[in-house]
Amino acid sequence: MAIITLTTDFGEKDHFAGATKGAIYSELPDVKIVDISHSISPFNIPEASYIIQNAYNSFPKGTIHIIGIDSEINPENKHIAMKLDGHFFICANNGIMSMICSEIAPEHIVEINIHDKIQTSFPVLDVFVKVACHIARGGTLDVVGKRIDAIKPIKNIVPYVNDDKTQIIGSVIYIDNYGNVVTNIKRQFFEQIQKGRSFVISARHYKFTEIFKKYSQIVNFDIPAEKRHDEGRKLVVFNSGDFLEIAVFKSDPQTVGSASTLLGLGVRDTVTINFNKE
Amino acid sequence: MAIITLTTDFGEKDHFAGATKGAIYSELPDVKIVDISHSISPFNIPEASYIIQNAYNSFPKGTIHIIGIDSEINPENKHIAMKLDGHFFICANNGIMSMICSEIAPEHIVEINIHDKIQTSFPVLDVFVKVACHIARGGTLDVVGKRIDAIKPIKNIVPYVNDDKTQIIGSVIYIDNYGNVVTNIKRQFFEQIQKGRSFVISARHYKFTEIFKKYSQIVNFDIPAEKRHDEGRKLVVFNSGDFLEIAVFKSDPQTVGSASTLLGLGVRDTVTINFNKE
Amino acid sequence: MAIITLTTDFGEKDHFAGATKGAIYSELPDVKIVDISHSISPFNIPEASYIIQNAYNSFPKGTIHIIGIDSEINPENKHIAMKLDGHFFICANNGIMSMICSEIAPEHIVEINIHDKIQTSFPVLDVFVKVACHIARGGTLDVVGKRIDAIKPIKNIVPYVNDDKTQIIGSVIYIDNYGNVVTNIKRQFFEQIQKGRSFVISARHYKFTEIFKKYSQIVNFDIPAEKRHDEGRKLVVFNSGDFLEIAVFKSDPQTVGSASTLLGLGVRDTVTINFNKE
Repeated sequence: MAIITLTTDFGEKDHFAGATKGAIYSELPDVKIVDISHSISPFNIPEASYIIQNAYNSFPKGTIHIIGIDSEINPENKHIAMKLDGHFFICANNGIMSMICSEIAPEHIVEINIHDKIQTSFPVLDVFVKVACHIARGGTLDVVGKRIDAIKPIKNIVPYVNDDKTQIIGSVIYIDNYGNVVTNIKRQFFEQIQKGRSFVISARHYKFTEIFKKYSQIVNFDIPAEKRHDEGRKLVVFNSGDFLEIAVFKSDPQTVGSASTLLGLGVRDTVTINFNKE
Repeated sequence: MAIITLTTDFGEKDHFAGATKGAIYSELPDVKIVDISHSISPFNIPEASYIIQNAYNSFPKGTIHIIGIDSEINPENKHIAMKLDGHFFICANNGIMSMICSEIAPEHIVEINIHDKIQTSFPVLDVFVKVACHIARGGTLDVVGKRIDAIKPIKNIVPYVNDDKTQIIGSVIYIDNYGNVVTNIKRQFFEQIQKGRSFVISARHYKFTEIFKKYSQIVNFDIPAEKRHDEGRKLVVFNSGDFLEIAVFKSDPQTVGSASTLLGLGVRDTVTINFNKE
Repeated sequence: MAIITLTTDFGEKDHFAGATKGAIYSELPDVKIVDISHSISPFNIPEASYIIQNAYNSFPKGTIHIIGIDSEINPENKHIAMKLDGHFFICANNGIMSMICSEIAPEHIVEINIHDKIQTSFPVLDVFVKVACHIARGGTLDVVGKRIDAIKPIKNIVPYVNDDKTQIIGSVIYIDNYGNVVTNIKRQFFEQIQKGRSFVISARHYKFTEIFKKYSQIVNFDIPAEKRHDEGRKLVVFNSGDFLEIAVFKSDPQTVGSASTLLGLGVRDTVTINFNKE
């Protein structure tokens, strides 16, 4: 039986997520429902985009992903469903999918047109659930919408590269649960520009000249543990989603601080990489 | 197989919700468990009441709802189970169900009396789970309790209307994840008093003369998007649960503020509606 | 079909928990996944230890528990899997299991050695999920690791008792969702030292001479409800996990305060019990 995932800004307290699950089970008692996140910041499309991009492809092909962010329908915010990379996505056409679509071409996109039958102030429950259950039962996208060729983009998701390719200017797109600072610079993109050159990464007045493979690479295990002071040290890694990330080793934002608080970096701040001449 | 939902003030961190699920699966391996919320404020009965009222009826008839708020048994706080609207509810007799019961008469209420066999400081796990699994297996309420006719009410859940029906005085019962301010004035109640008259809604020193059907109704889509400044504008809607709600368009309580913070409205504050003479 | 539980410090917002579930369902479509907690404080091993110890044994024997805290592999932090009390646990060898193991001897421990095939910066998803699914399919521990005899301990988890057994010095190990203060003094341990003697419990400048069986034991129900002022009163109980806990009756940390805030007690603070001569 199909899996339906939920990624929303409903929060952990309100009834919206619970009601949505009830509506799904009312239609399809045997479906599996998986929460990806309900704690996206309200109306925060880049956050939702980052989360769904990193979560979806751990699921089996055929999984149906409902993304409930800024989903009230209006003349500028239509509902769409698409098939991409063997997965189905249902969301508003507000840019959420543009980050994924910039890497993987969608196989099929429709603008949902079942609304004439539905008056709603809770579109995730009343529209997205209906479309998801339709797909889970094996229905086609063309029954619930009319085919479109392109979706609405969001700006500034790709880092800037200067003409002679000596510099990448990226920006912070996400602060994770550990307070680590995730940029929009992906490993493959970085390596294409780098071409093996050495580099300096600058964020505020901090500089880094190395990108680690994992967090504990900062530790020198030849020194006895009681003489080391690695917790709280700053480092750069490519994270598990292959995004360049500025991290603090074993950070806790509530106590000792994190990369975000210690470096003073927030979403939309700039991270620059300068490549050295060979 | 039955669905059992959980609505509690256990929080997201503690082991209570996980242990409760383990106990349910130990009795009934094939049941479905759905979290409605574990983030009700501790001991906050009106919040729990609002959440369960808005969530339950998206689920199929026959669903069993465990509500774990202020559930330690004592001489003034007995445990009850009831059938209402085709659903089952298990909770303490502390007022949680009085809001729903004021709209829909319960079909059957029992005071649970299986406690002589159970010494517990974790009644949700030790008592509510047992009752829920009993119902899920098709057992009757009369086996787990003795029938009672009425439950404990909570005060001030119904708005006040003056004698000549020119004024409704309601109050705030919930602040949602977006910081929107939900009152105890429901659409049907409002329309019965309104009888088509125009009106002024007052909350602190703010006035509203219109109730929207959806949030984006505040936007004038004839104006080009880049010239509009709708985010942050205040409005009144009937929300998806049909409660009168004071909202801020695309609010985020953590950043730009919300109806609650911008209007200075919290739970128990007053919202007044004055109807004009025709 | 098996149950796999998740206890992590991934938080409620990031994609890590969702991606982990997707990976499990990709291997085993019919398994049940249960969240115990994703809100352990980052890298906080004692918290994780307390949570899993209190949650695991509500689940059926044979349940597989993934604990994702500080799980990046390095020369000092190997991955282990163990069978204990009929349950399976998969985690880093960083002390998380030492509290449980001090009470119940593990039946079988292995150090996981499937890493030569896996390069990962997300070991919960890439290693723990593989091991969990292997066990869920009925595989043995010896296939995924080499047998070891002992695990890494964490310090100071057992309270101190003086030589003439007139004093227990314990410490705070957890603050729960209600702000109640949980110590490392367990009921059985306490009673072995107490041997029926009266006692004084000291925490900061507060003294208690009684341990309640449940929270509402502080209420005198002979006094009419409207004349009582029990909310906010301090008390000591053995909680549902049999840990000695300093609580505030009907506390809410966000509003009226809690044992932690009102008594000024945090994790690692001392709680002392002095026994009287008979």
